[in-house]
Amino acid sequence: MDRTFSQWKKQCLNKLDLSKKGSVDQDIEHVVSLLNSCEEYFTTSSCSGRIILIDGAPESSDVQKQNCVWLFVSHKTCTSDDLMTAVAKSSGDAVLKFEPFVLHVQCRRLEDAQLMHSVAINSGFRNSGLTVSKTGKIITAVRSTHGLEVPLSHEGKLLVEHKYINFLTQIANQKMEENLRRIHRFFQNLQSALTVEKLQTLQIPGPPASQELQYSSNLLETGTEEKDKTSVYKRRRKRDQHQTDCFHGDSSSGLHDLDDCLDLFT
Amino acid sequence: MDRTFSQWKKQCLNKLDLSKKGSVDQDIEHVVSLLNSCEEYFTTSSCSGRIILIDGAPESSDVQKQNCVWLFVSHKTCTSDDLMTAVAKSSGDAVLKFEPFVLHVQCRRLEDAQLMHSVAINSGFRNSGLTVSKTGKIITAVRSTHGLEVPLSHEGKLLVEHKYINFLTQIANQKMEENLRRIHRFFQNLQSALTVEKLQTLQIPGPPASQELQYSSNLLETGTEEKDKTSVYKRRRKRDQHQTDCFHGDSSSGLHDLDDCLDLFT
Repeated sequence: MDRTFSQWKKQCLNKLDLSKKGSVDQDIEHVVSLLNSCEEYFTTSSCSGRIILIDGAPESSDVQKQNCVWLFVSHKTCTSDDLMTAVAKSSGDAVLKFEPFVLHVQCRRLEDAQLMHSVAINSGFRNSGLTVSKTGKIITAVRSTHGLEVPLSHEGKLLVEHKYINFLTQIANQKMEENLRRIHRFFQNLQSALTVEKLQTLQIPGPPASQELQYSSNLLETGTEEKDKTSVYKRRRKRDQHQTDCFHGDSSSGLHDLDDCLDLFT
Repeated sequence: MDRTFSQWKKQCLNKLDLSKKGSVDQDIEHVVSLLNSCEEYFTTSSCSGRIILIDGAPESSDVQKQNCVWLFVSHKTCTSDDLMTAVAKSSGDAVLKFEPFVLHVQCRRLEDAQLMHSVAINSGFRNSGLTVSKTGKIITAVRSTHGLEVPLSHEGKLLVEHKYINFLTQIANQKMEENLRRIHRFFQNLQSALTVEKLQTLQIPGPPASQELQYSSNLLETGTEEKDKTSVYKRRRKRDQHQTDCFHGDSSSGLHDLDDCLDLFT
């Protein structure tokens, strides 16, 4: 099993990067390097987060939805002029999306995947989860609930005013900045968790149980406000409750409510 | 372990439903009943999918993002009048959202969770994943990539025209209908998978490996077009590739691309 994992890792890291860019996104190079430097982990795919504008076939049309055109892609913040220029090229149904950080990490053992999952949840990536394949591949997907999806044109015709696109640009850029803060929090929580893990492997007493929660607060970047720390705890408590209590109907909704409120304008 | 699971299940199913509605959403009652009738599973939370309008504190404000007001919630399709009436009540920053079906299923063994996850992925719920807690709780979250998140007002002022809200209503309703089709597909794939599982437990030869994929096509509701079947296969192939190949940068992106195109107007 361990040998198999090392082989998978070797094969993966020796492969050509088959992505369009052919390289890891700049904002997450340090995260990917840290993970690939650990013998328990390697990354299989990643995207730092992006603002995109896609032109889809109008739903009336017979053209398959796969046939869509990428009018704009940015892994950084953008200007409303960028979006105006891009949407002007729309001949179908254009949709503006903010897609947050996503990372797939293959893990040696289930415990390693659990650690990765817990770091992800504590850093605010509440849609994270594990996949265990029949061949024994264990992958943790780090995913955010954080999104934006706004139709801008129909059959090439702009549906909104320029000032609305200015407003959307601000919202998308705020989400991009919050996304970077979460990546930073994830990186710092990950560093701390891996250190504790190493100490425990060396049978040197690790920090107390409460320590894990501590990371979420201690390691938030400077200047983060008190309420941000609180929201990290709240998210975590809510998630725990969500997974262990028996709620139904609009309940999952207990979680949704919080997501809506937390993610609305961050 | 098995005794613990049965105890958890008993406790959970005997608990009061603490959700606002106090009951399981009508469109998923059959899914929840089927799962709770299996000794390997029980549901801990669920939402059939909903169109919501939430009024958040303007980001300029100091008010915590938690303090948001629910202007509208519907678990069925809605009219643009519903949304116009609701958005008229906005005094902050109102956002229209479509939130798809979400289900949390606690599973007896890891194999049971893997089966649930594979049924979810084959039914088009590509953000599904497992959680394994330190106490041994194994939960599969069934989640879709399918969303819509559109800012409609800022500081109580409407940002878009009525005809744009008419267009959004159509899009949200189309997503609600596609959501119901996916729930139906999930239910049918689940029924088939559980039958095969039972046959295998009774050591009666199950269907060939290819069978699992068969469900995705055989069990699509009548009237589903050929291209829908194809998209199920494509999604699945893409997902497998995404989890086993080594892509980076805009790569995860390989998956995003397809999601964008598939989910754009479904």
